[in-house]
Formats: sequence, structure tokens, C-alpha cells
Amino acid sequence: MTAAKHDGAPRAPRGTLYLVPAPLDFGCDTQAPLGDVLPEATLRAAARLEHWICENAKTARAYLKRVNDLYPIARPIQELQIRELPRAVHKKGDHQAGSFDAKPLLGAALQGHDIGLVSEAGMPAVADPGSSVVRAAHDLGLAVVPLTGPVSLLLALAASGLNGQNFAFVGYLPQDAAERTARIRALEALSRKTGQTQLFIETPYRNAALMDALCAGLQPDTRLSVSSGLTLASGRTRSACVRDWRQPPRSGAPDNATPAVFAIGA
Amino acid sequence: MTAAKHDGAPRAPRGTLYLVPAPLDFGCDTQAPLGDVLPEATLRAAARLEHWICENAKTARAYLKRVNDLYPIARPIQELQIRELPRAVHKKGDHQAGSFDAKPLLGAALQGHDIGLVSEAGMPAVADPGSSVVRAAHDLGLAVVPLTGPVSLLLALAASGLNGQNFAFVGYLPQDAAERTARIRALEALSRKTGQTQLFIETPYRNAALMDALCAGLQPDTRLSVSSGLTLASGRTRSACVRDWRQPPRSGAPDNATPAVFAIGA
Repeated sequence: MTAAKHDGAPRAPRGTLYLVPAPLDFGCDTQAPLGDVLPEATLRAAARLEHWICENAKTARAYLKRVNDLYPIARPIQELQIRELPRAVHKKGDHQAGSFDAKPLLGAALQGHDIGLVSEAGMPAVADPGSSVVRAAHDLGLAVVPLTGPVSLLLALAASGLNGQNFAFVGYLPQDAAERTARIRALEALSRKTGQTQLFIETPYRNAALMDALCAGLQPDTRLSVSSGLTLASGRTRSACVRDWRQPPRSGAPDNATPAVFAIGA
Repeated sequence: MTAAKHDGAPRAPRGTLYLVPAPLDFGCDTQAPLGDVLPEATLRAAARLEHWICENAKTARAYLKRVNDLYPIARPIQELQIRELPRAVHKKGDHQAGSFDAKPLLGAALQGHDIGLVSEAGMPAVADPGSSVVRAAHDLGLAVVPLTGPVSLLLALAASGLNGQNFAFVGYLPQDAAERTARIRALEALSRKTGQTQLFIETPYRNAALMDALCAGLQPDTRLSVSSGLTLASGRTRSACVRDWRQPPRSGAPDNATPAVFAIGA
């Protein structure tokens, strides 16, 4: 909690907004032991917080049950205050959702309670909803504290061997095949011109279609790295030139059920 | 260890390259407890590995001493094999260092030993040297496993409230004042055009000069987020419009001794 003062007038202590990472195994067949991917300080904070803002309340409760197996949570799960982000934010992202004002979600912090923000997997507000809540917290003068945990994009970037000193994450590629190929070629051209690694993701059931489009659309010398199942025992990263990816069997390509991160460096 | 076979011929099992994150407190006055920022699986891997490739052997040994306080390391530190990346890679980065071939550094893995790659702070090969080692590992057919730990860029991005679904990290800005201002304005224009958050870093003793340049060069409505001392008790993030940053005292600006991450969203 912070006890900030403004304008010289005393004010009740305000809560802090904690950004609480979740494991990356959401929707996967197997789970990573929580202690493998979350430091003790993150687990203790998750166990202590009684107010939550999340993408999906059911997933948040399942996560807190796993936390409770390691560190007893402060109250029974049904007594926690768990509030969901609106559907428009899920669907379009915080920055395309127009004028969504997240301040009302932060009411508990104005009454002195710390709040946790959690998404379904990984770091909230990174390739996931939540940034509107963080922005609102800053605008209300709340302290914002990000806690350490797994971030699939950065694990994938490190494991790719591609340029980690200049990189971009561009989200999802277009679904339309012609538009997708045009985008792939534009990202490759940008990478060639600037040296900037380009990272993107896809809904798992479209992994194979994306791999086909990448193998067909990229130049043979461009390096393509694909990480899937990060933090799981089955996790793997293959980083190779497109020329090599084109050789069957396409070893290292993700199946259509596992989240993957794609990176190219031309 | 992986026991891959090529060409049908049996081959000795090969070691895996583990990417081992380090805490972010390198060069800081205070240290974060290691268990606050590194999950148990990362600490156990660091304790187990006997072969290391690092940015700086002295820093790597200091890190392993801290690990040893929590999990006894496999051998006395002086018996570990610790090899440094060449200076050219430190200075220019893996992707500007020309034809540096990191394969000879990975000899132990060809003999079946797992190897750890570690940098001075955070995730190796992300805003830090090491990607040439990762690339060489892939080219040798070694498995590459990134372990979870703190990544200052992503903690800063999450805490900024800026767009986390489209972002870029561009490294350091130019030192020359006129070039730096031109670069700041180009990044702001890019962010305005594409919605892409632009992240960059600076050597701590230039923090104040960079803050001056940002406050002078950016538009009043552009949001500027500055995170310093991430993962430390003194850590803080301020995310506000440039108009507000211009008001003295410049609350939330980093001092000239603490690593900071800067992010803008126009």
C-alpha cells in the first residue's frame, strides 16, 4: 500500500495494483508445476490479494486454487472479489476498444485494498488484455507493481537466437490468405531493412496454415524460429532458415493445439 | 540432455543449452532476494550446471554464489567451466559483431554436458549479448531451453499501461543531442501511425539528459512511461502524458545510477 498525499491534504492510504503473471499452460494438456515458473514472491502476493481484476473469472479461480496448494490464500475463493474485464476488451484489445474507462474497476484500491490484475496466461497487459486497467491506475495515482513470471514472447525471443537488441511484437497476422502473405512479406522486408526481429502469434488451430504460409512466402535465407509449449516438458524451439523448414518432415512445427510464438529475422 | 540421431548413425547424447535469467539488480545499491525474482526450477538448474557461457565471468560467479546460498551448486565455483563472450560482442552486440562464430564455445555440449548461458542482468540474448550462442546451438542441433526469470523490458511494458499487443524495443537512442531528438520524434511518429509502443533504454548516468530530451521533444499528449529499479523495493513506474511530466518536480524520473526502461505511446 502507498500512503501518498496530494495538495498537502491527508488522504486515506491507497492500494497498489499488482500485475500478477500466470503460467503459460492455459488450455494445454499438461501443466507446469507452478513453482517452476513463478518465483516465491509472486506466489505469496497472489495468495495474499483479496481483490482481483481478470480476463476470465473461472480461469482466475483455477489459478488461485493452484496457488493455494503451495501458499494458503487469504480467504476462501468464493469470498474473493473477482471482477472481469468487459468482453469488448477481450475481443478487440484495450487499444481498439474505444473509450472503455477502467477506473470503476479500481474502486477497492481507492479504499486502501491492493488489487491483482491477472490474465489467462503469462503477463497481464502483454499480448493480452489489461493495459486499460494499468493506465487507469496511473491516472488515479495508484502505484503499479509488475511481478516476475513467464512471458512467452520473451522466452521465445531469447530461444530464437534472433536479434534481441531490436525486436517487435505485432500480434496476430491477418486471417485472409492473400493479406496474410502480404503481411508476412512486409514484416520480412522490415526485418531486412532494419535488422528488427518480428514476432507474432496465432490461434493454435491455425498453426499449420501459418507454417505453410511462412514456408511459402518467406525467402529461403530468412531465419524462422518457432517456439511451442514454452515452460512445459514438451516445449521446444526450432530456429532455422526457411530453406531448411521446407524440408519434410517439418520437424519442430507446432501441432494445432499448442500455443506457439513465431519469429523471423531476415 | 537430448539423444538425437542423424543419418541413422548413433551419436553420443548432446547437452542442452539453458538460457538462465539473472536478477535485475546488477550494479544497484540494493539486491532483490533471489527467490523473489527466480522460480525454483531456474535456481535448481543454475545450481546444477557445471558449464557456463557468460558476459562477464566475475558477475557470473557472484550470481552463482547467491544461487549457492539457496541451492548448493554442483561443484566449487573455481571448478566450474565459465567462458566469456568476446569483447566485440559486448560492445557491438551479436548482430553487429560480424562473423563471430560461437560454435567453439559450445564444445562441452557436443560431449554431452548441459551448458548455461547467462548475462549480467535479466534474460540472456534479450537487450543483452548471447544471441550468437543461441543461434550456434540451433545450428549444431542442440536443444535450447529458456528458463523463467525477470525481463526488465516486459515488466516495464506491462507496468506502462501502453499498448502491449503491438510494441517494439529499439535499444539505445543516439548520444548526439540533435540525432537523439530526431530519433525521439521518429519513434513518436511511428507510434502515432501504427499504435506500436516504442521501448528503449539508456545508460543510467544519461537518464536525466534523456528525460530532458523526451520532455522537450515529444508532443504534450504523448504518454511517456518510465520504470526504474524494477523488482527492487525502490522500484517504480510513472506513466503520464508529457504535459504532466513537464511539471516540476519531475516526480518518478530515474536517478542517474539506476537502470531504467522508457516507453512511449502516441
